[in-house]
Amino acid sequence: MNRTYEQRLKRLARAQREGRVDVMAIVPGANLRYLTGLAMDTSERITLALFPFDAPPLLLLPELEAPRAEANLETEASLYTYSDEEGPDAAFQRVARDLDLKGKTIGVEHLRMRLLELRQLEQYAPGCQFVDGEPLLSRLRIIKDDEEIKAMRRASEVNEETFRQVMAQIRPGVTELVLAETWQKAALDADGDDLPETPIVASGPNGASPHSTTSSRRIEPGDLVVIDGFLRSQGYYSDVTRTYAVGEIDEELELIYSIVQEANSAAREIVRPGIKAQEVDAAARQVIEKAGYGEYFIHRTGHGLGLEIHEPPYIVQGNDLTLRPGMTFTVEPGIYLPGRGGVRIEDNVLVTEDGCETLTTLPRELERL
Amino acid sequence: MNRTYEQRLKRLARAQREGRVDVMAIVPGANLRYLTGLAMDTSERITLALFPFDAPPLLLLPELEAPRAEANLETEASLYTYSDEEGPDAAFQRVARDLDLKGKTIGVEHLRMRLLELRQLEQYAPGCQFVDGEPLLSRLRIIKDDEEIKAMRRASEVNEETFRQVMAQIRPGVTELVLAETWQKAALDADGDDLPETPIVASGPNGASPHSTTSSRRIEPGDLVVIDGFLRSQGYYSDVTRTYAVGEIDEELELIYSIVQEANSAAREIVRPGIKAQEVDAAARQVIEKAGYGEYFIHRTGHGLGLEIHEPPYIVQGNDLTLRPGMTFTVEPGIYLPGRGGVRIEDNVLVTEDGCETLTTLPRELERL
Repeated sequence: MNRTYEQRLKRLARAQREGRVDVMAIVPGANLRYLTGLAMDTSERITLALFPFDAPPLLLLPELEAPRAEANLETEASLYTYSDEEGPDAAFQRVARDLDLKGKTIGVEHLRMRLLELRQLEQYAPGCQFVDGEPLLSRLRIIKDDEEIKAMRRASEVNEETFRQVMAQIRPGVTELVLAETWQKAALDADGDDLPETPIVASGPNGASPHSTTSSRRIEPGDLVVIDGFLRSQGYYSDVTRTYAVGEIDEELELIYSIVQEANSAAREIVRPGIKAQEVDAAARQVIEKAGYGEYFIHRTGHGLGLEIHEPPYIVQGNDLTLRPGMTFTVEPGIYLPGRGGVRIEDNVLVTEDGCETLTTLPRELERL
Repeated sequence: MNRTYEQRLKRLARAQREGRVDVMAIVPGANLRYLTGLAMDTSERITLALFPFDAPPLLLLPELEAPRAEANLETEASLYTYSDEEGPDAAFQRVARDLDLKGKTIGVEHLRMRLLELRQLEQYAPGCQFVDGEPLLSRLRIIKDDEEIKAMRRASEVNEETFRQVMAQIRPGVTELVLAETWQKAALDADGDDLPETPIVASGPNGASPHSTTSSRRIEPGDLVVIDGFLRSQGYYSDVTRTYAVGEIDEELELIYSIVQEANSAAREIVRPGIKAQEVDAAARQVIEKAGYGEYFIHRTGHGLGLEIHEPPYIVQGNDLTLRPGMTFTVEPGIYLPGRGGVRIEDNVLVTEDGCETLTTLPRELERL
């Protein structure tokens, strides 16, 4: 068994003992990958891993996924398969019997588990108590080790190369979708590992929506163009946003760019072990509020980054989690003016022993294209 | 309000009245898109639409998603937003009050709704009864209208063009990942609509796993190469698999190819209104079983296709659903020989008034590259 995964399972078992969670039930996603190496999909066919704290996990899965699971498992596990014809009921029954689930405390992932899995567990493990396992699981993953940080650095490099290639294509007449395709193709060329997802390209008034749908709108002179690109290397994300100007832009757009740039710097500058997540948010927010644009900064300052594109620590007011070395997250203040446009500048940072390293190296000064 | 969506909401309301579902609760995904036009994402920030049967829907969502929602909504809806700082609790409270949720029967999506949303509903709508809304919702979507079929035809054309381009690149020495990238780039070039997802490319022994992870393995002479590519046009999927031979292949691989080809034809030939979904599965399975390879056909014969890549009708033993004109699904028998390789031939079919139209036009004869 791979030593990294062996350690992770030991840490999970210890956390379960301390938290009095008899069995942790985990569906496909980041936690399953972190604990077993398996990158499975969520579908109408149930896949569910059950981790007792004193024995190797049991993996319930469709028969046709078994070859892939066996090829990619980094840990010991007992497989409980079912065919499309029979469905998962009998496999659930066997798992429940072998783990003696009745009446146990089962940790479940509130952010991932569907009613599909929950109702099966309720049926085959009567009298069980279900508790939210997310806090326990996210504590396991929140400090990145050297291998994880290496993957994130690599993802950053690939992502930045794609930005350079897209930048060269930004000009009046080009559509957002063509720029998104350019980004995606560049990502395909830059790394043969994980294939890239779709970036957000939001130009002109579309930029006022932080999660705008990339469209066939053509870039115009005077636009701000927001590009938010995210991709993975060995499972670990880079998530970067830059905002570019197309020729001469309106004075107020120029002003909000400089405010966001200052907010981004202010937030990154205070990141160090011992301060609280919400203090980073406050540092960015104060800059924007002082400049009179507080009501147009309509989201938190950032989110953790790793096997998931959004994970703890969340950089948001009300989160008094203390930052520690090895935590990784985004810093991405923005200002969004309805009908006119938006600015967001997003970097990825790593908390170090005595401060913070910004993994992103792309310039933050306004580039006029 | 767009007339298509108006009709869909009326059909939903009627189905809710008949099924005694007071409110249908729908999270981001195919049902939300079908009913409102909204293509939202699932994330740690809750988005939830609630459909009473006698009034327009209520949409609870993060403040930063509101501009995107307003730009894309095809129906009336009341928005209940919350900021990152406050979280969704107060918005849930207002929704529960305005809909007078207490004690009602709420339909929920077992295949999509997470414990995150369920626990909030349980808290703010005490005494509610939760019922599985999937059967009701899938009945609404299972017959495709002309616009939907048009989108699927377009997706098919784009997908087939990508296959032609990838085929030209299959030769010894090329890796699976490079072929997947070629497929993805061709898809980017062929359509400026939805950006493509990652195809499955499984060569040689990897092909024995139906859901193999595309890898850096290099194609070798004598390989079978399975390519399973899926992409969307205007939200609707094409999902096609072809298996190619690299030079001369082993006699048994040649044999299983011809068996799968025959099974694919046999299944498509019997598709017509009035027969049951499981009869289509049986038609393919009998061919493979008679040839002595039954135990190596380790999945159902197909799945419905539309806004989702897997949706009803499932073409599987035990499903006695009667086929009707306008249903669309895949026919994809396969044989998988552990350690040696696999064959799958997947087409997309539309049930017509008097039979079946195969939307896929790519050749099914074994191509030697």
